[in-house]
Amino acid sequence: MSDALLICLPDRDGPGFAQRVREHLPKADVRVWPELGDADQIAFAVTWNPPRGLFARLTGLQAVTSMGAGVDALLADPELPRHIALGRLAGPRLAADMAGFLVASILSHWRQLDQFRDNQRLERWQPWAPERSPIIGVLGTGVLGQAAARAFAALAIEVHGCNRSGRSVPGFDSIVPHKRLSELAGAVDVLINLLPLTPDTTGILNRRLFATMRPDATLVNVGRGAHLVEDDLLAALATGRPAHAILDVFRDEPLPPGHPFWQHPKIRITPHCAAITHPDEAASLAAESYRRVLGGEPPLGRVERQRGY
Amino acid sequence: MSDALLICLPDRDGPGFAQRVREHLPKADVRVWPELGDADQIAFAVTWNPPRGLFARLTGLQAVTSMGAGVDALLADPELPRHIALGRLAGPRLAADMAGFLVASILSHWRQLDQFRDNQRLERWQPWAPERSPIIGVLGTGVLGQAAARAFAALAIEVHGCNRSGRSVPGFDSIVPHKRLSELAGAVDVLINLLPLTPDTTGILNRRLFATMRPDATLVNVGRGAHLVEDDLLAALATGRPAHAILDVFRDEPLPPGHPFWQHPKIRITPHCAAITHPDEAASLAAESYRRVLGGEPPLGRVERQRGY
Repeated sequence: MSDALLICLPDRDGPGFAQRVREHLPKADVRVWPELGDADQIAFAVTWNPPRGLFARLTGLQAVTSMGAGVDALLADPELPRHIALGRLAGPRLAADMAGFLVASILSHWRQLDQFRDNQRLERWQPWAPERSPIIGVLGTGVLGQAAARAFAALAIEVHGCNRSGRSVPGFDSIVPHKRLSELAGAVDVLINLLPLTPDTTGILNRRLFATMRPDATLVNVGRGAHLVEDDLLAALATGRPAHAILDVFRDEPLPPGHPFWQHPKIRITPHCAAITHPDEAASLAAESYRRVLGGEPPLGRVERQRGY
Repeated sequence: MSDALLICLPDRDGPGFAQRVREHLPKADVRVWPELGDADQIAFAVTWNPPRGLFARLTGLQAVTSMGAGVDALLADPELPRHIALGRLAGPRLAADMAGFLVASILSHWRQLDQFRDNQRLERWQPWAPERSPIIGVLGTGVLGQAAARAFAALAIEVHGCNRSGRSVPGFDSIVPHKRLSELAGAVDVLINLLPLTPDTTGILNRRLFATMRPDATLVNVGRGAHLVEDDLLAALATGRPAHAILDVFRDEPLPPGHPFWQHPKIRITPHCAAITHPDEAASLAAESYRRVLGGEPPLGRVERQRGY
């Protein structure tokens, strides 16, 4: 019978995570890579950066879920069989962490809290507050984008979104479709990228988009490094449009020593930790996704392969 | 007839503010200190730091409103006649600014965004995220406290409040009465003071309260400088309880050169600008308050003198 669950997290604590999953599924046959046992029995896999050759061995596999919110690495695996259902784990806690990071880093910049830190060292009393709140634009209106929109809205901050179809989404003041992205970019003080990485969105943060942004605008990339054309950003910052960038993700991670982003005065870097998967939440979601798949339903956060997310 | 409105803002742009008020009240007799005209005709005054001797001249005065959220300076004026109704101006924009400041400064600290700034200079890639969200406590559950609670709640962050009676307030997960303040202080990671300054609350942030806080907790004072016993905070920080303080208000402002807070590694200072009155919002509220008073109603944000807010 094919109903075992495989945890395959080569660079992480697979056994520890499996233990948490077992607490949710005390009767399930939970296995931990690289000990597959009879690989035919594995129906469901939770993975991040799976090793080459894994999927060829899992002949009974019905579904696989990414351990995080992104599936770009899984979709790029040429060995992933086409009939396997694909899911991802993005719960409310991950979404709240992302929203908290965005609110904290964007409002700290808008209110120049760093300047106050420098002024404190100089014992300089110089009150200042911005004339108005920033207007926010969000590329991507999924679980993470919606959490960010709710957080900004609770601060009476205008927030507009952009998605493929232009369909309206709760929490956003307005939505434009992707083909009208430049309108959104020209109307906001801060443009946040939360898109999934697909062939359509690779390089979407490029010189054409930057040219439509407001002078003094801020670009925030918390999607994937490959969304951004790095040389285009360096050229754009030199012209002041955008004037600043907050970057959490990079084409090469860790960001290599000597990369021009490191010492750039207009770039703030965080090392891909805006929102980190919490093992507790992920274990609970993984268990729920497994139960759904064994019950004949699609996995949580089901991915449509053709659109890529 | 006694229906004139006086704008008395000695250290600010009184004429500019009067112009904004006139846009809301085109037919009203709006006067700007120090030109009182026939002072008996003044029914309503908007003021901040009024000069001594003013109120004795305003014999027809029915009500006065503070230009901001605090009335402690007005109540401390021995010349303010007892029969005058007192109000204050604290609108949604002021409240949203305060909430934005709190979320930005508290989450920046919780997530160690300053550390990433330092790491960037060193080209050091060191991902880190806290295990959990902070638990927030708020002293004071008025307009500003409620806006802060809503902002934290939208980020799925627990927020508890403390007010005089212990009555429940929307947006807070729980409320304790003042007499049980130490329970709240012992249960939270961050304690925010947003109380009005009254004889009861002067010095409320003192060594007895600090001793009930968690090790590693953060104290945030955005109320008034006189809420805090400064020497008690310095002694408490030396013991690590609280471990950090974020201070926007001080007993003496500007904070004097050489004051031990300036160079203290566990204190973050902003120069009383967490939330600054916006002239547009204040003018609209002042006009509304004036209309209410002429219509026989109490001013906006009516103050009960006995309780002091």
